[in-house]
Amino acid sequence: MAKAPVLTPRAEDFPRWYQDLISKAELADNGPVRGTMVIRPYGYGLWERMQQDMDARIKETGTQNAYFPLLIPQSYLAREADHVEGFAPELAVVTHGGGKELEEPAVVRPTSEMIVNDYFAKWIQSYRDLPLLINQWANVVRWEMRPRLFLRTTEFLWQEGHTAHATYEGARDFAARIHRHVYADFMENVLAMDVVLGRKTAKERFAGAINTLTLEGMMGDGKALQMGTSHELGQNFAKAFQTQYLSKEGKQELVWQTSWGSTTRMIGALVMMHGDDDGLRVPPRLAPVQAVVLAIKGDDAVVAKVREIGDALRAAGVRVRIDDRTDVPFGRRAVDWELKGVPVRIEVGPRDLENGTAMLARRIPGGKKAVPVDTLASLLPVILEEDQALLLAESRRRREERTSEVATFDEAVEAALAGGWARIPWATLGEEGEAALAEHGVSVRCLVAADGSVPDTDDAPGNVAIVARAY
Amino acid sequence: MAKAPVLTPRAEDFPRWYQDLISKAELADNGPVRGTMVIRPYGYGLWERMQQDMDARIKETGTQNAYFPLLIPQSYLAREADHVEGFAPELAVVTHGGGKELEEPAVVRPTSEMIVNDYFAKWIQSYRDLPLLINQWANVVRWEMRPRLFLRTTEFLWQEGHTAHATYEGARDFAARIHRHVYADFMENVLAMDVVLGRKTAKERFAGAINTLTLEGMMGDGKALQMGTSHELGQNFAKAFQTQYLSKEGKQELVWQTSWGSTTRMIGALVMMHGDDDGLRVPPRLAPVQAVVLAIKGDDAVVAKVREIGDALRAAGVRVRIDDRTDVPFGRRAVDWELKGVPVRIEVGPRDLENGTAMLARRIPGGKKAVPVDTLASLLPVILEEDQALLLAESRRRREERTSEVATFDEAVEAALAGGWARIPWATLGEEGEAALAEHGVSVRCLVAADGSVPDTDDAPGNVAIVARAY
Repeated sequence: MAKAPVLTPRAEDFPRWYQDLISKAELADNGPVRGTMVIRPYGYGLWERMQQDMDARIKETGTQNAYFPLLIPQSYLAREADHVEGFAPELAVVTHGGGKELEEPAVVRPTSEMIVNDYFAKWIQSYRDLPLLINQWANVVRWEMRPRLFLRTTEFLWQEGHTAHATYEGARDFAARIHRHVYADFMENVLAMDVVLGRKTAKERFAGAINTLTLEGMMGDGKALQMGTSHELGQNFAKAFQTQYLSKEGKQELVWQTSWGSTTRMIGALVMMHGDDDGLRVPPRLAPVQAVVLAIKGDDAVVAKVREIGDALRAAGVRVRIDDRTDVPFGRRAVDWELKGVPVRIEVGPRDLENGTAMLARRIPGGKKAVPVDTLASLLPVILEEDQALLLAESRRRREERTSEVATFDEAVEAALAGGWARIPWATLGEEGEAALAEHGVSVRCLVAADGSVPDTDDAPGNVAIVARAY
Repeated sequence: MAKAPVLTPRAEDFPRWYQDLISKAELADNGPVRGTMVIRPYGYGLWERMQQDMDARIKETGTQNAYFPLLIPQSYLAREADHVEGFAPELAVVTHGGGKELEEPAVVRPTSEMIVNDYFAKWIQSYRDLPLLINQWANVVRWEMRPRLFLRTTEFLWQEGHTAHATYEGARDFAARIHRHVYADFMENVLAMDVVLGRKTAKERFAGAINTLTLEGMMGDGKALQMGTSHELGQNFAKAFQTQYLSKEGKQELVWQTSWGSTTRMIGALVMMHGDDDGLRVPPRLAPVQAVVLAIKGDDAVVAKVREIGDALRAAGVRVRIDDRTDVPFGRRAVDWELKGVPVRIEVGPRDLENGTAMLARRIPGGKKAVPVDTLASLLPVILEEDQALLLAESRRRREERTSEVATFDEAVEAALAGGWARIPWATLGEEGEAALAEHGVSVRCLVAADGSVPDTDDAPGNVAIVARAY
């Protein structure tokens, strides 16, 4: 008899599978205010690991963390015309504070370019103060009409970087460095996610930017997800806030700026990229728990052995959890760890003690076999790196298999609606074609150069548009 | 000729000295919405170090991090009567979202007991789910009429712990464990701050708590600052939200809860506890930068030596910063590091190269002397631990010297107004006396038992009230 599925199968209903998984793996719950979410400890543990790794990478670029206020005077928004137009429909507005109506309402930050520039304009005096490289880890609020946990939430957590440079080239190169050496490197090497690096078309650019660099990932259903963005802001905010410096030549010059962000949306990507019908599969380099050692029965000798194995693995540098909750049926615990996507389960029962073995179950490739207990500490680090590579290869293979080269608008729409990505020459599609895609619920995710690199302009010869449905 | 003071001297105007220091050491700026603040990179670096250390201590208790939403439906507040009364005057209210007036306004969290209980009530089913131990690092908003950077700000950053237990004793012991083994231990051993552990009187208790444990520190001007609190909530929130569990005996029981918080206010305490007329003095165990190695002149050999010393100290486990910005006058840089309170400055000029020495300046005890370069790596770890102990001893001595044992209400007020703390038998002062203190701008900071321990009840025989002016 086949066991009843724990989750709605992906092939049956992908969105329902996604919600089932998030709920049953205890990643998050919906919050009481529409579109908000409660990130549960296991989900937050994934975010903490993302934060630690990203934070170190961000600091390696010379960027320092700081903290800007949540509340921004409403009038600030109006200073950069594109920016206010982009964000006005999504704002949460505080009209009352301390029991009184406020003289000027405050908006809850949807992003911090405005308030950052207010201070950059004060802090930056001379070329010696540049580049100024700041990041913050914070919550932001953008009112969301069609919320979905992690992917589109009214409040989300993120890091937002804000930098000011003396030259156009300085800003351009820094935005590109974050794009490739912080974001892409992290996503490929830690999240085990294949991502395509490209530039957004003018239509899809961040409100107030002169260029938006993006990372697009293909989810399990063939749709695209924007995984992070790095913007060149040019001098748009510098003009609005008079963010200037005294050059070596003694002239007042406007700074050139960047901003860049990555969010708790990456947790949603993790689910949709690596999840299967049994639950999540967490890449070992990210996993808060890389291996769980389970006592099958509450036998003293079994529990002692489980602890001994846990200690040995910990000494080998593996992040281990012991599960000796033998008052909960073993089957239920095994299913729970499967749902949570812990890469390796080591199961120990009374019979294993006699044989000096343990059952080793691998979540990522699947499969289960008995192995000698004394080989575990040397085996696990090897297995975990293998699993890390497997996930990345799988995600790359999916994207390659489901991407088609097309020559016409109709073919592009057809490929996207069939659950894949289409690559079409940008010269063929053009801005008119891009506008027409919207009627089909399809969009240009990014432009890439013919050689796969990130193009310097929208209209560089040979640019290819990647067309897909997107989250 | 004496050098002009960089800061307003403490003896002249303590509040102005405090503001000067925060501004000139680049810790924080005022935000544009009244009462908010921008935490600058150096100030935020202190907070990051506090977070890292506290987070590890919190996790050692078995507590896991999670994240609850910023926005809470206004109606939730009303469910616990004392709680709403305590917080209503301080709320920021979001009335508009996504361009429309909201059906129900949302408050920006002033604290999260309400929303946490909403989810605890769902997550907790059985005694097996207890204790449930959750913490979050987050921002909160409490509208502040008389703001002061770090001490009282409309938005501040904190950690807030929320736990649920099966028994009264379980909750009581956990609140006490956080109070002593997380907060007090961190403050004494990392922040080098003398703190008095006590319980708040009924008047000063957290809104909704049955007991509030506090840590009170004496600042440089003799006033008290509440450094952190740990509350027993009893079953007040459990009743309001029906947070129940099925006991081993098969009965539905209400849980017993705690909550506990510590905030960016600790940065203000750091300034007022350890600062002097030259700036901040950061305890070495906390310091993001424990030693700065300065090149006096931009000579190649000097800069090479500075880097070599930096590497040697880093290898010895010291957190080092190199300062080779020789286009900025040396004197200005030295003053800046003094202001920022970096414990050790190592200054290298051309003459030092010849002698194989460097000037070693100690910020905490003061003083400067030439030492052989090759002794630095072994010397510094010793010096830093010495400085850590010096700061704690100084803060303890100040509290002891400025605390007086008094027998009457008038003496207590007099001692407090003179810039110190008064210890008066609680049986002598009583609740009426406590109420009368307010007219003099003085309050009971906490109750302590005769033997210095934390009393179990307000009215335990021998309880002593600590009376002071407070921030």
